[in-house]
Amino acid sequence: MITPRTLKGFRDFLPEIMLPRERLIETATEVFRSYGFCPIDTPALEYLEILLGKGSDETDKQLYQFTDHGNRQVGLRFDLTVPLARYTAQHFAELTFPFKRYHIGKVWRGENTQAGRYREFTQCDFDVIGTKSLAADIEIALVINDLLERIDLKTKQTFTRFKIRINNRKILSGLLDKHGIADKTTPILRALDKLGKIGKQAVLNEMTDAAKISAVQAEAVLTLTELGNTVQEREVAQEGGVLAPRFDETLLALRSLLAGNPLGEEGVAQLDELMRCVQASGIPEDRIVLDVSIARGLDYYTGTIYETFLDDLPSIGSVCSGGRYDNLAGVYTKQELPGVGSSLGLDRLISAMEELGMLEKVATPVQVFLPFFAADRLADYLRFASELRRKGVGIEFYPEAKKLGQQLKYADKRGFRWAVIIGKDEWAKGNCQIKDLRTGESVESPMAECADRLRAADAQEIVAA
Amino acid sequence: MITPRTLKGFRDFLPEIMLPRERLIETATEVFRSYGFCPIDTPALEYLEILLGKGSDETDKQLYQFTDHGNRQVGLRFDLTVPLARYTAQHFAELTFPFKRYHIGKVWRGENTQAGRYREFTQCDFDVIGTKSLAADIEIALVINDLLERIDLKTKQTFTRFKIRINNRKILSGLLDKHGIADKTTPILRALDKLGKIGKQAVLNEMTDAAKISAVQAEAVLTLTELGNTVQEREVAQEGGVLAPRFDETLLALRSLLAGNPLGEEGVAQLDELMRCVQASGIPEDRIVLDVSIARGLDYYTGTIYETFLDDLPSIGSVCSGGRYDNLAGVYTKQELPGVGSSLGLDRLISAMEELGMLEKVATPVQVFLPFFAADRLADYLRFASELRRKGVGIEFYPEAKKLGQQLKYADKRGFRWAVIIGKDEWAKGNCQIKDLRTGESVESPMAECADRLRAADAQEIVAA
Repeated sequence: MITPRTLKGFRDFLPEIMLPRERLIETATEVFRSYGFCPIDTPALEYLEILLGKGSDETDKQLYQFTDHGNRQVGLRFDLTVPLARYTAQHFAELTFPFKRYHIGKVWRGENTQAGRYREFTQCDFDVIGTKSLAADIEIALVINDLLERIDLKTKQTFTRFKIRINNRKILSGLLDKHGIADKTTPILRALDKLGKIGKQAVLNEMTDAAKISAVQAEAVLTLTELGNTVQEREVAQEGGVLAPRFDETLLALRSLLAGNPLGEEGVAQLDELMRCVQASGIPEDRIVLDVSIARGLDYYTGTIYETFLDDLPSIGSVCSGGRYDNLAGVYTKQELPGVGSSLGLDRLISAMEELGMLEKVATPVQVFLPFFAADRLADYLRFASELRRKGVGIEFYPEAKKLGQQLKYADKRGFRWAVIIGKDEWAKGNCQIKDLRTGESVESPMAECADRLRAADAQEIVAA
Repeated sequence: MITPRTLKGFRDFLPEIMLPRERLIETATEVFRSYGFCPIDTPALEYLEILLGKGSDETDKQLYQFTDHGNRQVGLRFDLTVPLARYTAQHFAELTFPFKRYHIGKVWRGENTQAGRYREFTQCDFDVIGTKSLAADIEIALVINDLLERIDLKTKQTFTRFKIRINNRKILSGLLDKHGIADKTTPILRALDKLGKIGKQAVLNEMTDAAKISAVQAEAVLTLTELGNTVQEREVAQEGGVLAPRFDETLLALRSLLAGNPLGEEGVAQLDELMRCVQASGIPEDRIVLDVSIARGLDYYTGTIYETFLDDLPSIGSVCSGGRYDNLAGVYTKQELPGVGSSLGLDRLISAMEELGMLEKVATPVQVFLPFFAADRLADYLRFASELRRKGVGIEFYPEAKKLGQQLKYADKRGFRWAVIIGKDEWAKGNCQIKDLRTGESVESPMAECADRLRAADAQEIVAA
């Protein structure tokens, strides 16, 4: 006998968690498509040389790699960006640009599992590749808004309280450039990243020590973070109320901070247009925040940056992040491929929905249960169920003619909402009992009207005819 | 520079093939759910001991296996049945039985790629576990019928001409049992499998030589295949006409062939009830064929067996196959888990749809294209597009204000059906031009009516107001 078990860091999904996962993915797919994004897929396994050195030292170390039957060095993909770069370069002639794609798939990383991290997880990326136009940056923000707004719409659960935080990497780059310290970007970013943990003075020290910039320069860099803080403090002060679109104020400050530096000025102009257009496109003002304190990744992003936080659960971190990059596939092709995109954090969102009580814990995709009651009527039950399905009502038929009580106990465990009970008498009359499994109440209905009644009942309680 | 390439036997999916794949999976999901089947998922990687020895010698040899960072022997799953067995045993206490699940996921096999086979492919399985009731067997046939009938319903393309071939393994087992040669099942099946290739006499020879049964016994075994042939010949003779449900005749022959053998008689009785119930449940008579010549797998199936062939493309092989088994997870648990299920051949179906001209070769999930025409109206275009999406009309906006001709060329390449053109004059009037990209004709419409017109146009051509 072999012990049935999964590998450390890997997990099975039970029906009650797979159902909302599938719904979430369906909603995301609908949103992506409504903007013209197309699905693609790539293999789980790639040549090792495609994957190695494309992420960080960490992803290299975490790579699942081995030698295959044909003596090839191969690895499991650790994200969907590296495969996208390889794919775009490889199929350049077959694709139409600007190329808008989404990709939902599993990725693997041999991470330390202590932090509650998994070694297999699903990524959900969407990008517009092959255009430098700010219109694409704006559209990505609109997609993020639609995603959050429409998630789990089928169970009437949506996120309406969230913030899309937007920045532009040209702001920081311009500032460093203006102060002649652009070559120190990496150590400066590393220091800035620790601000929340070690505080302002320690960051200033690290910048002067490790990045070897002057105290004046370090102070100037920190000004940016202060601007960010100001925005956040104001929000906290206004908690509960509607936030005013104060980005004009921030832009004004940035303009003076970066005056005379072309790169920085371009960043400010882009942020200005993006903020105005996003709001003019119909996203409520309080959902879009210009936040110059966010700075995703070290070197990859070069323009707009996005992060998205749930108002009711900011601690869970950003649920949709991304940004603009100058060149997607430089290691695979000479073709310059600028793009902009973002990634929806499926697992984080499911966790958030669970924590916020947005998930119904049911293990059935349909609401209606049909017990097998009169043992000699098998074909009749099956035909009745088929007719209901044809009329758009999903229904599960119990396969054994056990005692009704036992079958209803099963229905209860699974979480069905209604049972349609047809016994010997009902078959004779052509009627059925529609039983509300929450209240225990039943109404009798002609079989032919059953589908309509159940459909109506989806919105309101069934009343006797 | 690194050459962008995929591993031998692996492939990328371009948008025009991913779109119908996703639609197919959506349809299958809808059908599964309408019967109460729940989705599950399991890891791509399993402990090697879970996978080894669970398929055939071939799957063992083809296994992608390696040692992970934690020095564990691991492998990529080669099917979804072994993970299901492990899953059901592991989560036995958390699941409700009968357990109805579907599972759509990638599997990996280091197969010889010469036969056009892939080393990574998607399986789509559905099973009812934990019941011996024939009602479950009948339901699996109903699901197969619904799947084929509803596939790609969204583009109004469905398979209505197909045959579900049904057999029961107890027929052959009963026959061998009756002739006292049940212990020779494996070599007899191996010989029978070659019938199409080597012919009747060679099979008879192999049975007497390799299986060491008498010539009389071998002839008796072959009688079954003859029954199968009779059915097939009759169908060929009736080609084009509606097939009469001749299964009564076959059952009569089987009854006399197996008289006195309890196992064989049970098989005949089950086939009888199943055929009658399936037809009474509403599947057209000519889609269900009792075919005693089919015999899937060697040892796994113990009862009902299913195969499904497209009338218009039988050469592609069975597109949905499966059967009943006595015990799913005997190596992982003492709990007896009988079940019945089937597997939809996604890749075969896509190939069939391609070959039968059922796939529109478009690289866009939406029908409507919005060119960026008046360069100073970016926010207005974006808001207009957002409004259309809110009204249920998917629309792609071009991100660059290039020449209209260039943008329409892009729309043509992608396969859009309509373009909504709004230039300076239209913005001033609040109108738009709805252009049919097939005919080149345009009608002018108030912007507010655009969504309704496009929705109506989905069914019929747009007419001027």
